[in-house]
Amino acid sequence: MAVVALLTDFGTRDPYVASMKAVISSHCTAAIVDLTHEIEPFDVFGAGWFLRTVAGSFTGEESRPVICVGVVDPGVGSERRILLLTRGHLSFLAPDNGLLSLLELEAARLYSVENAAHFLPAGSTTFHGRDRFAPVAAALARGLDPTELGPRIDPHTMVRLDYERPRYDEERAVGRVVAIDRFGNAVTDIETARAGAPVSVHVGTHAIARSARNYVEVGEGAFFVTGSSGTIEISLARGSAAEMLQIRRFDPVEVRVGS
Amino acid sequence: MAVVALLTDFGTRDPYVASMKAVISSHCTAAIVDLTHEIEPFDVFGAGWFLRTVAGSFTGEESRPVICVGVVDPGVGSERRILLLTRGHLSFLAPDNGLLSLLELEAARLYSVENAAHFLPAGSTTFHGRDRFAPVAAALARGLDPTELGPRIDPHTMVRLDYERPRYDEERAVGRVVAIDRFGNAVTDIETARAGAPVSVHVGTHAIARSARNYVEVGEGAFFVTGSSGTIEISLARGSAAEMLQIRRFDPVEVRVGS
Amino acid sequence: MAVVALLTDFGTRDPYVASMKAVISSHCTAAIVDLTHEIEPFDVFGAGWFLRTVAGSFTGEESRPVICVGVVDPGVGSERRILLLTRGHLSFLAPDNGLLSLLELEAARLYSVENAAHFLPAGSTTFHGRDRFAPVAAALARGLDPTELGPRIDPHTMVRLDYERPRYDEERAVGRVVAIDRFGNAVTDIETARAGAPVSVHVGTHAIARSARNYVEVGEGAFFVTGSSGTIEISLARGSAAEMLQIRRFDPVEVRVGS
Repeated sequence: MAVVALLTDFGTRDPYVASMKAVISSHCTAAIVDLTHEIEPFDVFGAGWFLRTVAGSFTGEESRPVICVGVVDPGVGSERRILLLTRGHLSFLAPDNGLLSLLELEAARLYSVENAAHFLPAGSTTFHGRDRFAPVAAALARGLDPTELGPRIDPHTMVRLDYERPRYDEERAVGRVVAIDRFGNAVTDIETARAGAPVSVHVGTHAIARSARNYVEVGEGAFFVTGSSGTIEISLARGSAAEMLQIRRFDPVEVRVGS
Repeated sequence: MAVVALLTDFGTRDPYVASMKAVISSHCTAAIVDLTHEIEPFDVFGAGWFLRTVAGSFTGEESRPVICVGVVDPGVGSERRILLLTRGHLSFLAPDNGLLSLLELEAARLYSVENAAHFLPAGSTTFHGRDRFAPVAAALARGLDPTELGPRIDPHTMVRLDYERPRYDEERAVGRVVAIDRFGNAVTDIETARAGAPVSVHVGTHAIARSARNYVEVGEGAFFVTGSSGTIEISLARGSAAEMLQIRRFDPVEVRVGS
Repeated sequence: MAVVALLTDFGTRDPYVASMKAVISSHCTAAIVDLTHEIEPFDVFGAGWFLRTVAGSFTGEESRPVICVGVVDPGVGSERRILLLTRGHLSFLAPDNGLLSLLELEAARLYSVENAAHFLPAGSTTFHGRDRFAPVAAALARGLDPTELGPRIDPHTMVRLDYERPRYDEERAVGRVVAIDRFGNAVTDIETARAGAPVSVHVGTHAIARSARNYVEVGEGAFFVTGSSGTIEISLARGSAAEMLQIRRFDPVEVRVGS
């Protein structure tokens, strides 16, 4: 049985997510899984980073199709394309606004979803989540071949977010904060494995020289740790590092490396 | 496989939704789908409008039963009835407090759910969501015939919300704001298709004469658009129209119509 | 088909719950059910009480395995154990930090989960929810025997929360507030069935002598009622009793009993 996994900026107070689920569950028997609906309205970067973080965990048995639907779509109803990216059993369906541009794309195939036969008839111009993404996801869950949806396209034509990947050299790694999580951890995009032996982490006017393997072994004060995505995080045991150090998303971070 | 779709005002912090899911998943193999649990406490109108909005999206293959369970139930434990409304493969289970009264009822059958054999034994007087709605939904998901639950009743005996449908004439349509969504759109109940050619939308002291087909093609300032339910919405690109114009739910709205 | 039910303090803004779901849905075909992700960060007691409240509702057909996964885990990456508690078709997987210690344990079997063959390879030290709990839950959903995960252990070695059960005598019952729910009900741990005939409920400087069978039959002012877990609750019709009476979790409560 296929899985349709949903990521939106709709929240759950309004009937938008529910309407998508109604369409999906009326058109296929896939298991519907909520990834999140709490992306900040219109925060395409946040959605893209979320998807990048989660994508690596959809491993395991190749035989079960998984369709991740990402609807953060301020351009709904305009000429922006709808993209389908497939890689083995895993597919991503999203507007062409950069949402998929943070994923690693090796060996992936990209399609422009254009075949209105798979959209709801008489759909709206303001809610493609329900009228296009949901029925297309259901069709994919039922086994539709992606080539039925539209032409295969060159990945280089995809809209990309203005995001610069971190730079690594022998003395330092330079990147940025990509997320502040619920616990107040400031998550960076600097991969510990690539940074070598981190000695200190610099953000704003702060230099953090204490490191830890988890959130328990240190006492008071901020420290850095390799988080669950393999990147450097700035943390505080049982407190918000981001709040204490006034760290915000996109703040530049420098990691100095030992020899 | 059947679908049991849940709508409540319970939030997700407390164990109430989880208890309903525990009962449902212990009594049937239906897929459980969260519609929303963020209805404001006791907001029967909000729940009813949500359900009305979503109901139309449960279309598609007729063979899969869908049971929508709506528990916004300030009268729990009192003499209020529990209603089951069925229309084809789609059923709605809710207290008789108006929650189902905004649905279109053509060709629907209505039952009063009274057969305690399908309730949990030794149930509480304060949590029918878990003790009555959940096991009855599970029984329906397993294929129970509605007539086993209680007598078929006259839809005119259903408790109705104090809601006046919009009025349309050749010069104007008069309705109200029925929801403010997460994006700050003020959603009205005035159907564009019935209003003819809308020229301007009037709410409070504001007159909005700009219209759009989506949220992108206009620049600054409020505009009106046909939203995803086919009704007029007052919107602001990347901002909250409701906040800027101080619009609240139930505010009267007038749409002037061109000739 | 098995059920994997999730309880965490992760919230749904961040990719943590989604990553757990990605692993689970990639490793088994169990239905994934969200119990809650809104436990306050690190609130092990809140998680434990939530699980205790919900556990009793996983009744019904014995043949469907249910695995409840509780991840409120400030000690992640330290030497704390991971526990599996099984009782018939129902299992609980959680860190050994007290989270499972509020469950009734009669006839339950307890295991220490240690077999790394069932963890994700190359897992992190900061996110066992994804790297250990999720794949182990999936393995159990596929039918793995608990003895494959690690040794059976003595329940007395489990870490316990500092929680004193209520005391009952002929004149009174003494307990505490264990939860404040979304509606402002102050939920206590004093079981009405054991307290005999409650006459008045005392909390802080307040004495509440009015009782009710539900939230409707009384008018203004606080009252006490037997809530859905069979314990005394202090309530206010359509208002927050906790706010009005300034009741907080863990406040001591005394119930005076009639003769």
